[in-house]
Amino acid sequence: MDIGSILETAFHPNAIAVAGASETSSSYGYHFTRYLLDHGYPGHVYPVNPNRQVVLGLKAYPDLTSIPEPVDYVICCLPASKVLDLLSECPAKGVKVVHLLTARLSETGRQEAKDLEAEILQQAKRVNVRLIGPNCMGIYYPQQGMAFNYDLPKEAGTVGAVFQSGGASGLLVRYGGLQGLRFSKVISYGNALDLDESDFLRYLAHDGETRIIAAYIEGVKDGKKFLNALSNAAHAKPVVIIKGGRDIAGIKAAASHTAAIAGSDIMWKTAFKQAGVIQARTLNELVNLLVAFSFLPPIKGKRVGIVGGGGGISVMSADACEEAGLIVPPLPPEIDEELRTRAPELHAWLGNPVDCSTIRGSSIDAREMLARMAQSPYFDFIIVNITEDAPFTKDIWSSLVREEAENTISVSGGQSKPLVAVVSGGKISSDQFQDWRWKLLAEQQARLIAAHIPTYSTVAEAVKTMRQFIDYWQAKAAT
Amino acid sequence: MDIGSILETAFHPNAIAVAGASETSSSYGYHFTRYLLDHGYPGHVYPVNPNRQVVLGLKAYPDLTSIPEPVDYVICCLPASKVLDLLSECPAKGVKVVHLLTARLSETGRQEAKDLEAEILQQAKRVNVRLIGPNCMGIYYPQQGMAFNYDLPKEAGTVGAVFQSGGASGLLVRYGGLQGLRFSKVISYGNALDLDESDFLRYLAHDGETRIIAAYIEGVKDGKKFLNALSNAAHAKPVVIIKGGRDIAGIKAAASHTAAIAGSDIMWKTAFKQAGVIQARTLNELVNLLVAFSFLPPIKGKRVGIVGGGGGISVMSADACEEAGLIVPPLPPEIDEELRTRAPELHAWLGNPVDCSTIRGSSIDAREMLARMAQSPYFDFIIVNITEDAPFTKDIWSSLVREEAENTISVSGGQSKPLVAVVSGGKISSDQFQDWRWKLLAEQQARLIAAHIPTYSTVAEAVKTMRQFIDYWQAKAAT
Repeated sequence: MDIGSILETAFHPNAIAVAGASETSSSYGYHFTRYLLDHGYPGHVYPVNPNRQVVLGLKAYPDLTSIPEPVDYVICCLPASKVLDLLSECPAKGVKVVHLLTARLSETGRQEAKDLEAEILQQAKRVNVRLIGPNCMGIYYPQQGMAFNYDLPKEAGTVGAVFQSGGASGLLVRYGGLQGLRFSKVISYGNALDLDESDFLRYLAHDGETRIIAAYIEGVKDGKKFLNALSNAAHAKPVVIIKGGRDIAGIKAAASHTAAIAGSDIMWKTAFKQAGVIQARTLNELVNLLVAFSFLPPIKGKRVGIVGGGGGISVMSADACEEAGLIVPPLPPEIDEELRTRAPELHAWLGNPVDCSTIRGSSIDAREMLARMAQSPYFDFIIVNITEDAPFTKDIWSSLVREEAENTISVSGGQSKPLVAVVSGGKISSDQFQDWRWKLLAEQQARLIAAHIPTYSTVAEAVKTMRQFIDYWQAKAAT
Repeated sequence: MDIGSILETAFHPNAIAVAGASETSSSYGYHFTRYLLDHGYPGHVYPVNPNRQVVLGLKAYPDLTSIPEPVDYVICCLPASKVLDLLSECPAKGVKVVHLLTARLSETGRQEAKDLEAEILQQAKRVNVRLIGPNCMGIYYPQQGMAFNYDLPKEAGTVGAVFQSGGASGLLVRYGGLQGLRFSKVISYGNALDLDESDFLRYLAHDGETRIIAAYIEGVKDGKKFLNALSNAAHAKPVVIIKGGRDIAGIKAAASHTAAIAGSDIMWKTAFKQAGVIQARTLNELVNLLVAFSFLPPIKGKRVGIVGGGGGISVMSADACEEAGLIVPPLPPEIDEELRTRAPELHAWLGNPVDCSTIRGSSIDAREMLARMAQSPYFDFIIVNITEDAPFTKDIWSSLVREEAENTISVSGGQSKPLVAVVSGGKISSDQFQDWRWKLLAEQQARLIAAHIPTYSTVAEAVKTMRQFIDYWQAKAAT
């Protein structure tokens, strides 16, 4: 079978066996069984455990061979010493793919563990089984009820991800979820003993459910294969990548995490650039970029109009835009002319950024101002900061913030320029956790996300993201 | 009276009159009266309003002269056209300082407004009254029950701030408050018609309640006076400054915000460097730095030990540290030796950063590991990431995060190196707002803050802040 078909099977298995399934809540065999149940995997889940009759309400089997039907996909939560035996049972059930959650192999740096890992690969080849892992979380595919963590979104989306790290893949889905990202398929692949990043990238490049590809990669064993897969993927879809292990300590950490050879930073940077891939430095940057790609059409110009925020915030917003290499043009002549006749008190005062505290109570309202800016050919996109610190009582502040969110939503779409919102909730702290202020902001953020408007927590994050986003589309247009 | 005594009076007025006090909840005259009542200003508050007998339960007076006692300090919420009259009433009550919240003066760019502003200054000089403002929020001094916004902390702290922007000063207190900052005195001074940034800086430099100074400055009129005040202040205490209006659009925005002449960025940078002042680019950076200065002793070395986070997070943490110019040394020989004998399964595997997912269940526990690192002379400080994405059920995850926070608190202090915590709560979104996960993190963050441990929301923010913090102390030691 070609790798595309193998992965198709892994994503749509007729049934899944969990080797090492257990009711001991400190074991991964417990958690992986529950993930499947919680997410509603529609096929049979077969717990495999010689010491149990039942696991989480499901009949348990002493070994793979006792399972009454063929099983495409096995999640192996067994310790490393038991993997060879498990593999030997696979042919009887026609197993195509085994996900080895199993860790403590080559990443430990110990020779006997490395030897065992090599033996596992040999055995897998002998029994014609392909491996995901070892030392990884496997597959999150919400559409199919496959998951690798608790409380992840059950709805599907269009972001596909290839993550060498399991923990980071969980954070991607969880934190990205809060900014509105939803995922097609996320694969955490760990030590890449058999199936590797290139195989997964190639799959996602052709996957109809995936519009954008995210990746976290510590190292690759076959550079040529990888560059090829990467440039294919980047040709088909936007690809945003974190290269983990960029300098000495990071490279060392990568080696003890997934036994990856991290390689030189410059080499990677060059490769990413040539392939047309965007490099993110942190998970936060990655999420921010995926939000832009998920919610915005291509933007090819750097001229930004900024609305919202008080005076100091407007000054700092302009600084942040300019330092990110965006262009902050003056208000366009048609708006200038309108102000001259309709709101002379604002003329010669109001500029871009639009300090909303000055227009409140004037003869031009905030929605109209936003609509005119969003329609002006002088701007390529608009940033709306809905979280001015107006020093008002709860009722007034709440209605202002609600109004700003409503204006943004009502102006977006149609003939409007793309809009990006800044919702600065501050950082959570327990006293304020149930505070109406943060709750209100969270609700407005949810509304903006539902209206497909990207939200960022600071202007600096928004503009940094937008600069990279625009650079991508400009480079794309130039090729 | 010298300016120090004038400001002493402004911060400790015998009584405060609010000119334009009102019960109309859309007016600043209402809000400023309420701020004083909400914060429990201990002296008399005298609402002044010719059309009202009572404002917010307080007897109102038709003008300043009807007030039955002397009044040191007046908050003027009147429109610009009424300021001259108000000033003429000041001598009768011995008013020393008037805070002109009043805006729409020179910042509008209109000649008649500029002329009126000049006339206001002349009049203030004639009646021997000093002005804060116009176009600003005035004073937040929690110790004295003086405030300029709702829901600001009532407890006092040691951060003093001089902010040209009113809105940004509110955000500083509110967002800084969530990371544990508390303030001595915050002054929002707007157009700086009379008393200016230099006067306030000089005051805070000598203020016994202020240990650290924050500033947001768009422009100064007297450069020599400012540089003098700045270098005096920076000589006495750490000073962290945002220069608002750094490039063309920012400079324009500053002019229409506070009529400030922003000047060239390079000139400012040089001045800050010479004065030994730290420059922050955003409010977030400013808050992060103030948190370090508030909670940490001087740190002069760049060697960081990192504990916590899973494998991928450890790799990304090492990358972030190295890219911020910190040094990530290997585990020290004494820990290496200990691992060799007590936990051979970890030896050759575990490194710095310490991936906590590998030591869980081993013969060395996380607290002991943290304690040994915090005592090792090989590190100058330790970053603990308490928010590993362990893919466990609520109860297990909660106890892990609690344990990590407890370990951090119990190891901090005494002979330990300074500790810095990362609490990545993700971004708030309404579905998850009341989620136990974010609430638990918020509670742990509050505990860490109470134990005087700085908390940051990402490793990248923590290391960027620490690099600037260490640079400051290294430069200080070199002079």
